[in-house]
Amino acid sequence: VRVAVLGTGLIGGSIGLALRRLPDVEAVVAYDRDPSARAAAVRRGAADAEASSAATAVEGADLVFVATPVRAIPQVIEEASPGLRPGQILTDVGSTKSRLVVEVEKSLVEGVIFIGGHPMAGSEREGIEAAEATLFDGRWWILTPTPRVEPDAYRTLHGLLARLGARVIALDPEAHDDLLAVISHLPHLTATALMNLAAERRHAGLLALAAGGFRDVTRVAASNPDMWVDICVDNAEAIARALDELAGRLRELGEVVRGGRLSELRKRLSAAREARRSLGAKPLAGEPVELSLPVPDRPGVLAEVTTAVGDLGINIEDLQITHAEEGGRGTLRLIVLGVDPARRAKEALARKGFEVMLLRV
Amino acid sequence: VRVAVLGTGLIGGSIGLALRRLPDVEAVVAYDRDPSARAAAVRRGAADAEASSAATAVEGADLVFVATPVRAIPQVIEEASPGLRPGQILTDVGSTKSRLVVEVEKSLVEGVIFIGGHPMAGSEREGIEAAEATLFDGRWWILTPTPRVEPDAYRTLHGLLARLGARVIALDPEAHDDLLAVISHLPHLTATALMNLAAERRHAGLLALAAGGFRDVTRVAASNPDMWVDICVDNAEAIARALDELAGRLRELGEVVRGGRLSELRKRLSAAREARRSLGAKPLAGEPVELSLPVPDRPGVLAEVTTAVGDLGINIEDLQITHAEEGGRGTLRLIVLGVDPARRAKEALARKGFEVMLLRV
Repeated sequence: VRVAVLGTGLIGGSIGLALRRLPDVEAVVAYDRDPSARAAAVRRGAADAEASSAATAVEGADLVFVATPVRAIPQVIEEASPGLRPGQILTDVGSTKSRLVVEVEKSLVEGVIFIGGHPMAGSEREGIEAAEATLFDGRWWILTPTPRVEPDAYRTLHGLLARLGARVIALDPEAHDDLLAVISHLPHLTATALMNLAAERRHAGLLALAAGGFRDVTRVAASNPDMWVDICVDNAEAIARALDELAGRLRELGEVVRGGRLSELRKRLSAAREARRSLGAKPLAGEPVELSLPVPDRPGVLAEVTTAVGDLGINIEDLQITHAEEGGRGTLRLIVLGVDPARRAKEALARKGFEVMLLRV
Repeated sequence: VRVAVLGTGLIGGSIGLALRRLPDVEAVVAYDRDPSARAAAVRRGAADAEASSAATAVEGADLVFVATPVRAIPQVIEEASPGLRPGQILTDVGSTKSRLVVEVEKSLVEGVIFIGGHPMAGSEREGIEAAEATLFDGRWWILTPTPRVEPDAYRTLHGLLARLGARVIALDPEAHDDLLAVISHLPHLTATALMNLAAERRHAGLLALAAGGFRDVTRVAASNPDMWVDICVDNAEAIARALDELAGRLRELGEVVRGGRLSELRKRLSAAREARRSLGAKPLAGEPVELSLPVPDRPGVLAEVTTAVGDLGINIEDLQITHAEEGGRGTLRLIVLGVDPARRAKEALARKGFEVMLLRV
């Protein structure tokens, strides 16, 4: 496999470092708008060679990672276009997906396959100097395949990411953005609003008395405002919806408290406690189980199957498609860990009309 | 000093253990509704003796700590009433103050002085077995003196608490309840609402993907629901107000995000970051500075002066009042740590019409 990495910051650099440890990766070529950053990538061992443009970097690559900030992605792909050829696989690492996936698919060179991606890994530090080969070890890496994505291309990318140590999960682009709004952006903006509310009070000097609870809830409010402005722009719609929803819940809770509706209050507190506790529980990494299902040979099946499993929070360890010789249909084989996750995946797929056979491997 | 402790759980037991290490504490007498709990208090060294009723426990005590749950406090004080005599000082450890202080002052035996209190210390564990003499070491202990509180009584209690290691701060009862609503109750209910919002989503299985930010913000939602129902009942009004206020701020933030008002968004994010960062900064424990101010000999002066300093988040290390021989006025001396806090306290007092002299000790 030959790989191009466009953008050699923390994420791009770490991808390069991790890929170069795999024996079947022939070459990693790096491009960055900043010549010193791409030179540093080679010096740090994150790439075998640097290219002086995005278009030359992608020439002859089987796989292209676009690892720039989310706003720059369409522009970089456009710059790379003269070098792109049918059959090449393109992926990105942007933190929002719905708008981006639509925009990229619309403008892409015919035959080039784009699979949106989002590795949920990061660091306090930034730039190539902070890059590490182990950055993705045990971390989630979300892929957002659309109906246009070919199973074999998906398999190639999925397999490579799994070998970087990532837990790969497939989600629909909209589901990705809503998920991120809820588990990342909303907590951040809530911490911001709570911190400002407290700081603007008459007794602001008394915030020194705040104990662990307040400090935990507001901790994320100390992050970089510029980064968060960008995130809010990129995922504005899902974030605004989530903010409205939480505001509604807080107002309801205020009515419950004011009205002394104690059993309702206890119900909400208990539900949150249960949910928070189960969040802490690590799923047992069970034995590998194969889900085997006959699938029609039509576009969209791969995205449908993988996102149905992803919706359950279950990552697919490996997947394979065999095409029947007479054509028109094939068999999709997915490996997941644990009998219970396998059963839940089977049920979800059955609800979508797929006939699944479970097989311990 | 002879002390009675009514209620020998974690807090009452810890008060007993800490007091018995002070050489001038002659005796600690313990009462608890549960006979085995008061026996355990003596066995653990948290009391010299146990009493079989609240009224006998307080007989001859200079100082009485009521350390029951907040709801039981008025009842316990009523039970103790037959043993109370003018000049005795009563304090409590309840976590809400406005309603309680009014209720207790109304029903109290003439001449007995009540000073509301709230030690901001606790533990995951409960009961006398978890009690520790060092529980209050370095912790805030809020007192809520009203105009009826005599300076000398305040000084006695304040001095004793400071010798338990607590940082004593005076607040108006309403300011206390609003402060606690904002720095403790609101974060908890916000975490609850956010956790429930996330858990009720279609993609709830995906919460496993939530990273540190979400986990930090929702951590407190895992606490004991029953305890929190009680807190919400006790401080309902301040909590409901705070919930409404935060809901309003989240809705505004939603409009800012939806409307793409980026400079407004950046302003809010930056303000929260600054506030959160300064929360982390430990104030330097400076040299002791004396604030000396002539005060008229009228009720309410002590509460006015101490809460004005408390509002700034500044704790008073020591205080003393000297009465002029001709009567009608006296001099109040406060010790605070650090020249800067002393100056800020002086300014706040000047705004209230007091003429303050600063003196390095």
